[in-house]
Amino acid sequence: MFRTFARAAGAPPRRLFVGSRGGGMRIVGARFLSQLQEPKEPHMATSEVPGPESQAALQRLSQLQDTRAVIFTADYNKSVGNYIADADGNMMLDMYCQIASIPVGYNSEGILRAAKSDQMAVALANRPALGVFPPADWAQLLEESFMRVKPPGMDMVFTATHGSDANEIAYKAAFMHYALKKRGGRAFSQAEMTTVMDNAPPGSPDVAILSFSLGFHGRTFGALSTTRSKAVHKLDIPAFTWPRAPFPQLQYPLDKHVKENAEEERKCLAEVARILKTNAVPVAAVIVEPIQSEGGDRHASAEFFRGLRRITEENDVLLIVDEVQTGCGATGTFWAHEQWGLATPPDMVTFSKKMQAAGFYHTRKLVPDQPYRNFNTWMGDPARAIVARAIVDEVLEKRLVEQVREVGAYLVSHLEPLGVRYHRIVRNVRGQGTFVAFDCPSTELRTELLDLMRREGVNMGGSGDVTVRFRPMLTLTKAHVNVFLARFQSVLNKMYQKHWP
Amino acid sequence: MFRTFARAAGAPPRRLFVGSRGGGMRIVGARFLSQLQEPKEPHMATSEVPGPESQAALQRLSQLQDTRAVIFTADYNKSVGNYIADADGNMMLDMYCQIASIPVGYNSEGILRAAKSDQMAVALANRPALGVFPPADWAQLLEESFMRVKPPGMDMVFTATHGSDANEIAYKAAFMHYALKKRGGRAFSQAEMTTVMDNAPPGSPDVAILSFSLGFHGRTFGALSTTRSKAVHKLDIPAFTWPRAPFPQLQYPLDKHVKENAEEERKCLAEVARILKTNAVPVAAVIVEPIQSEGGDRHASAEFFRGLRRITEENDVLLIVDEVQTGCGATGTFWAHEQWGLATPPDMVTFSKKMQAAGFYHTRKLVPDQPYRNFNTWMGDPARAIVARAIVDEVLEKRLVEQVREVGAYLVSHLEPLGVRYHRIVRNVRGQGTFVAFDCPSTELRTELLDLMRREGVNMGGSGDVTVRFRPMLTLTKAHVNVFLARFQSVLNKMYQKHWP
Repeated sequence: MFRTFARAAGAPPRRLFVGSRGGGMRIVGARFLSQLQEPKEPHMATSEVPGPESQAALQRLSQLQDTRAVIFTADYNKSVGNYIADADGNMMLDMYCQIASIPVGYNSEGILRAAKSDQMAVALANRPALGVFPPADWAQLLEESFMRVKPPGMDMVFTATHGSDANEIAYKAAFMHYALKKRGGRAFSQAEMTTVMDNAPPGSPDVAILSFSLGFHGRTFGALSTTRSKAVHKLDIPAFTWPRAPFPQLQYPLDKHVKENAEEERKCLAEVARILKTNAVPVAAVIVEPIQSEGGDRHASAEFFRGLRRITEENDVLLIVDEVQTGCGATGTFWAHEQWGLATPPDMVTFSKKMQAAGFYHTRKLVPDQPYRNFNTWMGDPARAIVARAIVDEVLEKRLVEQVREVGAYLVSHLEPLGVRYHRIVRNVRGQGTFVAFDCPSTELRTELLDLMRREGVNMGGSGDVTVRFRPMLTLTKAHVNVFLARFQSVLNKMYQKHWP
Repeated sequence: MFRTFARAAGAPPRRLFVGSRGGGMRIVGARFLSQLQEPKEPHMATSEVPGPESQAALQRLSQLQDTRAVIFTADYNKSVGNYIADADGNMMLDMYCQIASIPVGYNSEGILRAAKSDQMAVALANRPALGVFPPADWAQLLEESFMRVKPPGMDMVFTATHGSDANEIAYKAAFMHYALKKRGGRAFSQAEMTTVMDNAPPGSPDVAILSFSLGFHGRTFGALSTTRSKAVHKLDIPAFTWPRAPFPQLQYPLDKHVKENAEEERKCLAEVARILKTNAVPVAAVIVEPIQSEGGDRHASAEFFRGLRRITEENDVLLIVDEVQTGCGATGTFWAHEQWGLATPPDMVTFSKKMQAAGFYHTRKLVPDQPYRNFNTWMGDPARAIVARAIVDEVLEKRLVEQVREVGAYLVSHLEPLGVRYHRIVRNVRGQGTFVAFDCPSTELRTELLDLMRREGVNMGGSGDVTVRFRPMLTLTKAHVNVFLARFQSVLNKMYQKHWP
């Protein structure tokens, strides 16, 4: 099986690189990229990851940036499909995918084609202030990209640049909407216009976004005030005194804890209702992830989310669904919240990561009462919308969401027995589509597992304190799952031999 | 003079476009872009801007986005150099440049070349999580782009995605640094780790960034709390109760108000010192623009800024210089603060806009004590770093900063006499490099002036309530200034005839 890769990556000496400016490397001839072939299995050139070349690159980079979180330096010229190449010539099956943000494979032919288009060159050479001088064909590009996959009930899209940005702008829309309702059509008062310049009420009112314990919604100040995943994300940074509600902590396996789990969800919803009615600071919107991702792959039932929608409606509070990590097909529907069977759609749906662009969908009622209020210079990026269109094209044409459902079921069906056989390491297997996870009994065992998997040629990531999360591309196949399973079982055996000989 | 443009844009019928997907247009053959020639003067095909084609495009776009701030829809396929084309075939000299964010001209050959490179295609097709899996050549790209023009005294760069983002991440670095000093080396306390999840002190401490009245630092929640430009930017959005200090309001002409202006600056600095010493919420950093831009092109002297640096040092508070709008050459030095003659450099310098990328420079002391603290998924964008490198290359090779100084002096020398002759409209001419402005006596007259200038083929923008700001590209020449001056004088004459016949 290794021959295919060896042939694709090795001799004859196709000189893909030439030395150029600054003594560095630059690619010559792009055609090779679409000729890259995905290997049939991982290929490890070094026994440790990061290897010596990664280490040397990091040494240089550490003069300019903080590199302590780096796992290895990659070679994106050689990465292909579901495989990431590193600087040492290692070729790893990637099930982490740049923190869940690669949708259709490295050096995807469709994205490369879009990247090489004249439209892309014009977009990169003429970045517009989209709110003031949009390109004449901007509407068409929106229609062909984001609007082609708009969630049910949404009819507008506000473009942004990354997930935190999308959430923050959605919060601003929620606060403007809240104030508009409260103001009841009257003009801004002189007191509002004056106090706002001092960040004081009534101009800067004390209103809140409600989020959930262990939720993650980004790292900028507004987003961070709703993020509740880990102390290290928030420590030392001022935050708004916004409330948080408990998110259900389900017990696994689900079918053995039906009653307890329903009771747990009921209690959490009751707490949401209590906060919305009694919180000292009025709540303008609730934000929730369909699956809490950074917080440790915590799920809740469709019924819980239907209940949440009902409660927000009863309290005239907006519901924002954060699909930054769950969106774009990974859970087996294009948007994870489509699986909830809502009677009325959420008010806003935010996205980023696998869309390789960012923003939020909304309905017309969330357009502010005046222009320039929810505004910034760039307001997104046509170059990224062109990439998003290529992604949407590929996902729909290749029916990748359907593939995700099938491959995800295959993955879970093979993980579950391992969760029985290797219960000292693999617990609480769960997932929707290929958005799958399991828990380890400790952070230390998880770190050991991830390190060993990487040495075996499978790049994986964690979430929460003890969870291993699968965040493969939508292009993952059963063959990739088999490659993973073989190495996973080998690593589990090694760990058992070491810890429980 | 018009023939050059007519020949470049008109017959023979070079078919630059073909109909494609969705009934829209797509360019075929990129070579034409580098063959675009800048016209010698504006060409107006419609008497109104926006014209009918812009209106039609806006009608369609308004189904998907809020278009009320749009001035016209542009045709970036035909825009070239200092001229922006609109959907109606108008060709306008652009002195607004996407809110001060186009550095070296529309469809710049250097950026187009970078956009068409294989390195760009790979960057677009494989967007990395830079903090975890950076490309092996990321250090080299940083060295060839941002670090090549690093401000004096800075040795590291934190990359971000836009100006607000850059400022917010700089604030986080400031707060972490503040807490580190205060903690004095001890580990995080249990109380800190627990309270932070409720957004409460001591984990989420009550600390502040000090900004100046009429300053603008962005639109996300942390940035917006330091923005003090206009009520409409802030209204209805919760804000941190951070303090603001007065920014000097200088009187013009400067040489006739030396004493009053020095006194005004002294008073403002005294107020900064007072706030740093006595503010109820401790201040971790001061942020300031070298020229307040959105606030109405408000200047202060180099002595003021030297005093500000001295006061921040005396109070052990960080100084962040926001060069998002002033950076990248427009003021006649690559960074505007280089003109202050500081004894010690600022602690952080933030950038975006004309760099077509974003981030902040800093020294090693501002690296947090642990990894993952100042962190996010993308942490910038190699594609934009490639564009920034092309920009830096062109600015340095063509000596554009020197050109800005020369052309800026030429522009001001011609504006000043107009400020005497047309004093009922043109007041307080001021500027550094081509970062030039004047005031109108009222918002209404400014609006009228900007509209008339656009009809004459010159696209300009306002700042503050009554200011007209020049934000041309660095490639502006004296010939462009002459084109502007002829139309400006004609518009001033028309306005005089109308208002003061």
